[in-house]
Amino acid sequence: MDYETPQFFRVMQYATQADHDVVDMVSGSPDWEPPTALREGLSEYADADPDAFQYPPSVGLTALREEIADRRGLDPEQLIITNGAGEANHLAMAGGLERFSGEEVLLTDPVYPYYAGRANFLDAEPTYVPTGPDGHLDPDTVRAHASRETAVIVVNSPNNPLGVTYDADTIGALVGIAEETDALLVSDEVYDQFDYSGRFASALAVASDHRVVTNSFSKSMAITGFRVGYAVFPTEALYERARTRHMLSTVTSSRPAQAAVLQALRDTGPGYYETVRDRLKERIDRFTDALAAAGAEYIEPEGALYVMARLPGVSGTFESVERLIDEAGVAGMPGVAFGTEYEDWIRFALVTPRVEEAADRLIAQFA
Amino acid sequence: MDYETPQFFRVMQYATQADHDVVDMVSGSPDWEPPTALREGLSEYADADPDAFQYPPSVGLTALREEIADRRGLDPEQLIITNGAGEANHLAMAGGLERFSGEEVLLTDPVYPYYAGRANFLDAEPTYVPTGPDGHLDPDTVRAHASRETAVIVVNSPNNPLGVTYDADTIGALVGIAEETDALLVSDEVYDQFDYSGRFASALAVASDHRVVTNSFSKSMAITGFRVGYAVFPTEALYERARTRHMLSTVTSSRPAQAAVLQALRDTGPGYYETVRDRLKERIDRFTDALAAAGAEYIEPEGALYVMARLPGVSGTFESVERLIDEAGVAGMPGVAFGTEYEDWIRFALVTPRVEEAADRLIAQFA
Repeated sequence: MDYETPQFFRVMQYATQADHDVVDMVSGSPDWEPPTALREGLSEYADADPDAFQYPPSVGLTALREEIADRRGLDPEQLIITNGAGEANHLAMAGGLERFSGEEVLLTDPVYPYYAGRANFLDAEPTYVPTGPDGHLDPDTVRAHASRETAVIVVNSPNNPLGVTYDADTIGALVGIAEETDALLVSDEVYDQFDYSGRFASALAVASDHRVVTNSFSKSMAITGFRVGYAVFPTEALYERARTRHMLSTVTSSRPAQAAVLQALRDTGPGYYETVRDRLKERIDRFTDALAAAGAEYIEPEGALYVMARLPGVSGTFESVERLIDEAGVAGMPGVAFGTEYEDWIRFALVTPRVEEAADRLIAQFA
Repeated sequence: MDYETPQFFRVMQYATQADHDVVDMVSGSPDWEPPTALREGLSEYADADPDAFQYPPSVGLTALREEIADRRGLDPEQLIITNGAGEANHLAMAGGLERFSGEEVLLTDPVYPYYAGRANFLDAEPTYVPTGPDGHLDPDTVRAHASRETAVIVVNSPNNPLGVTYDADTIGALVGIAEETDALLVSDEVYDQFDYSGRFASALAVASDHRVVTNSFSKSMAITGFRVGYAVFPTEALYERARTRHMLSTVTSSRPAQAAVLQALRDTGPGYYETVRDRLKERIDRFTDALAAAGAEYIEPEGALYVMARLPGVSGTFESVERLIDEAGVAGMPGVAFGTEYEDWIRFALVTPRVEEAADRLIAQFA
């Protein structure tokens, strides 16, 4: 997979250049309001003393680390505030490759392409574990692919692109496989606020020196451009190495963004997240109804922001997606961008107020 | 040098725990106001559409790249917006080690310790080139230390910790040495707005495939916590590799900070920078007068934010600095933190409104 040229650019460019209206369901950037307290936090920060504009600690603002640690039942000393989940995953994967035996990174197929990009950039060999036809990852299949060569296993739940959520048994089994093979499980949980199944289980609940949990506020607070995430490390050795890598490569995450997230965490009640989830559930219902009416196969979303679907007579290539843009005015991400297992499928992101319109267009085209 | 535990912490902690008042001249964080337009930019951004809160391009906001490129006479395509100069230097050094022959990084002694930290972290061997007694770097000395083993040469002008500024001849000669030895000169110019000599010369003025220029707005806009810097790459190969490394490790720099810097660049006239420079010149005069009165040796600052001085009977060890805190109530950074050449010296940072008070205390103690 070519991770150097973001593939969604190709699709979005094609959609933009179309001579008719296209509903963009390609990228995963939220289209809704951030928490009010986030805007307030940023606004107040803009008037702060010059002191507050200077270097925060490299591992992140102390109050922010404490706030997160408190909410998650952690010791703040396990936690590094990162430049989003992207950096958190980079630090976790790099640390796992250094500290655990083997040079292989196990990824799922389909996979969020940046995991593969990071593995390649770290000179590791990615091995892909196929997910089942229902989109779920069977721990037995992971075990069958894991070996002493495996240093890192990366999973994402709720999952991009499949929209499934792994339950506590699955996460527990995955941590167990990491322990058995002397590997590090990196559990990327950025969509944890978008679980519609009620079954989401964080890997933090499984005590182990073999798992790192990564997360960010990019999706939960609708601020993908702010770059505030975090990684939770189980051992001092992993933590210290990540701290040094973070300090020498990015120094620290941007302080205005950290200050805004801190205020948003403190002053945002559960209602904000519920409202966003409810809106997404409506979009899912509307869109999957249309897919059913259009005779499409799809994975019922249990979490995250995407619907993976197979439309009748449409494959998951870039060419097919471009044809769908031309003929139906709906743009999705081709399955081939995520691997080989779902290469006849298309991922539709639900981060547009025009889901209804897209649904109508698919019905008109296929039903 | 131990770069993993920021050494200034040790001194600052000692100063904080003192039972008497101490003037902090340890760290290099500006104590003055950022540009008004920076605050306005951040404030306006806080009210922007949710769209503006999402991912900017990985290489930085297009308008910000164009604004910088325009001011510096560059093609925006040579430029990556980074998480401050820290990331810019990391990208430049990593790229130089990959693309040029040899595994050695030439640094100056005394050196800004993070350069040494980055070299170590990238598994390179740092070699130190001593600076002369006047604080200047003699290109002939650099040439004598450079060899086919040299992959990267890192220089900083105006210089931290010595306060000297390299002129056009020096920079030209340094680029020449990089070319002769098939190495990359990384010219860190974060203090370019703090040149009191009128002799500062950017390496951008020397056309060459062997130099990368790094910079940031941390000092010039008094926002070390914002993390907005940039690196200018001379070739597509260096640029592309840095772009990939940046994308896979930090994804992109934080957008609120980029938006604020963009507005500050557009709406801040030269008066802001002149006022800051004038204030620093006053502080330099006041402080060096006191050093002279105290019988100290010092390097007359030509640039940056520091005065390097040798006080009578005081060495540049941590113990000496702690004694100075106890006896004079003034805290500086010990020379040993920067290498061996100036280990009897102490660096005093001029980023406190209490320079006058510190000056009086040194006179009272030593004169």
